Amino acid sequence: MGSISRILIIGATGYIGRHVAKASLALGHPTFLLVRDATASSKPEKAQLLDSFKASGANILNGSLEDHASLVEAVKKVDVVISTVGGEQIASQLNIIKAIKEVGTIKRFLPSEFGNDVDNVHAVEPAKSIFELKAKVRRAIEAEGIPYTYVSSNCFAGYFIPTLAQAGLTAPPRDKVVILGDGNAKAVYVKEEDVGTFAIKAVDDPRTLNKTLYLRLPANTLSFNELVALWEKKIGKTLEKVYVSEEQVVKLIAETPFPANIVIAISHSIFVKGDQTNFEIGPDGAEGSQLYPDVKYTTVDEYLSKFV
Amino acid sequence: MGSISRILIIGATGYIGRHVAKASLALGHPTFLLVRDATASSKPEKAQLLDSFKASGANILNGSLEDHASLVEAVKKVDVVISTVGGEQIASQLNIIKAIKEVGTIKRFLPSEFGNDVDNVHAVEPAKSIFELKAKVRRAIEAEGIPYTYVSSNCFAGYFIPTLAQAGLTAPPRDKVVILGDGNAKAVYVKEEDVGTFAIKAVDDPRTLNKTLYLRLPANTLSFNELVALWEKKIGKTLEKVYVSEEQVVKLIAETPFPANIVIAISHSIFVKGDQTNFEIGPDGAEGSQLYPDVKYTTVDEYLSKFV
Repeated sequence: MGSISRILIIGATGYIGRHVAKASLALGHPTFLLVRDATASSKPEKAQLLDSFKASGANILNGSLEDHASLVEAVKKVDVVISTVGGEQIASQLNIIKAIKEVGTIKRFLPSEFGNDVDNVHAVEPAKSIFELKAKVRRAIEAEGIPYTYVSSNCFAGYFIPTLAQAGLTAPPRDKVVILGDGNAKAVYVKEEDVGTFAIKAVDDPRTLNKTLYLRLPANTLSFNELVALWEKKIGKTLEKVYVSEEQVVKLIAETPFPANIVIAISHSIFVKGDQTNFEIGPDGAEGSQLYPDVKYTTVDEYLSKFV
Repeated sequence: MGSISRILIIGATGYIGRHVAKASLALGHPTFLLVRDATASSKPEKAQLLDSFKASGANILNGSLEDHASLVEAVKKVDVVISTVGGEQIASQLNIIKAIKEVGTIKRFLPSEFGNDVDNVHAVEPAKSIFELKAKVRRAIEAEGIPYTYVSSNCFAGYFIPTLAQAGLTAPPRDKVVILGDGNAKAVYVKEEDVGTFAIKAVDDPRTLNKTLYLRLPANTLSFNELVALWEKKIGKTLEKVYVSEEQVVKLIAETPFPANIVIAISHSIFVKGDQTNFEIGPDGAEGSQLYPDVKYTTVDEYLSKFV
């Protein structure tokens, strides 16, 4: 475990990619970022982010998933490739696999996952198809014999915790909370910075080679009822709880058009079916907080305290 | 225009497909529905819907986009193919194109569109990629020389009007409304039943052959400010208006994970960029209410009255 691989990140200005890039730089990896338009000025936020990565020592490379030569050139510079492309670009990762296969020297590939373990879900459409697309990418990686780690980091805390998953809010509710299903299925909430740290910890670790890295952080594995109770305790107030039965959730998905129906269908998988915790981690998996007990992750309890 | 084509609908139990199927049956077309599992009992709502279509004379065929033989067999039975598959299955429509090409007798294909005109959008990611995927399907249809009509029906009224596009609500707001951009870009709201009627009207119409059918219903083409004003007049109350600048909207998209970011990015295209109305309909397009002035569509004014 003494090696410090050179890492290429594809999608480093994205929602989770920025945290993976920060962790790669913070943990001392020579870090390369493949960027569609490094001189883009139309998005000031993106340009600022790239400037800060450059200041931290990142190497910015121009290229894209659609430019095979640029991909090959970038892949040749590194030992490890991490894709953090957005959900709309999952299928395009087949282009990365092709480039990795062609270069032939990559020691580890982490495709864009960072959610439920797509081989262990009980989802309805449209989430079903979306999970299947990620599984298809997994199968392509395995078929090519590319060394991999799949990072199943479960819920992004920064998305779910500030509103307790209530659409349209900007802070956790203080009167009423809508709960999908019976509220007893456990989900896992991981702060985005911690997702980045755990992912980078795994890249040079033989214990995660050709395995799934699950983040089931003990302090952050909570049922929705437990999550609400934690919040209620903090604000010293009991919320009105509106439970939505699975049948009603499935009906709501059918009666909501794309793309809003995806949001509900993924919530159904997480909160009704319990797909983040309803299976045992097998020999093809390893749990992040057990592998890296030194990582001091942010707990849901700490996160919620910011909103009291 | 005397012919009554036989129509195959792929995706007839979906959000918009059910309305297209109803319209096909109501307007007297021999109607065939390709269904993944016609005996599926796990979804009572879907089974009920299929039963009602059967009672109205629809022919249910078993098959799927992944089963080429089933597609070819279904396509052989009809003159017109309408796809209403969900947004997560857009790319899989290449399989329909392949089957239509193989059969060679289809007089018109309507791919799954039913939104913005994807050749006239100014979207940011992830909406950009999603629109591009629909455009790619258009180019594949044209490359194969398949006769087509693209239905750009703009906003589903049933999704946007009941909440005035405010996340988390179940009725239009009575206190505060969030408005993306300056609220002056005009969008078009079309009730789902009317989308179905206009789409079916177009299938045997030579005026829509190899063209885009735009729905820019005069009574329903409104800026967000006009929409809010209409609601305010109905309830006799002025709402607090929170305007979100384009810069803030773009930042919010970047700070929201997939898939919720898609919802905001599509709203950015519609409500900030005005992509439903910021171009003239050219010679490759035709407008629905002008072609079919006999269709008595539901107006936004009538729709809003239900919530007073």
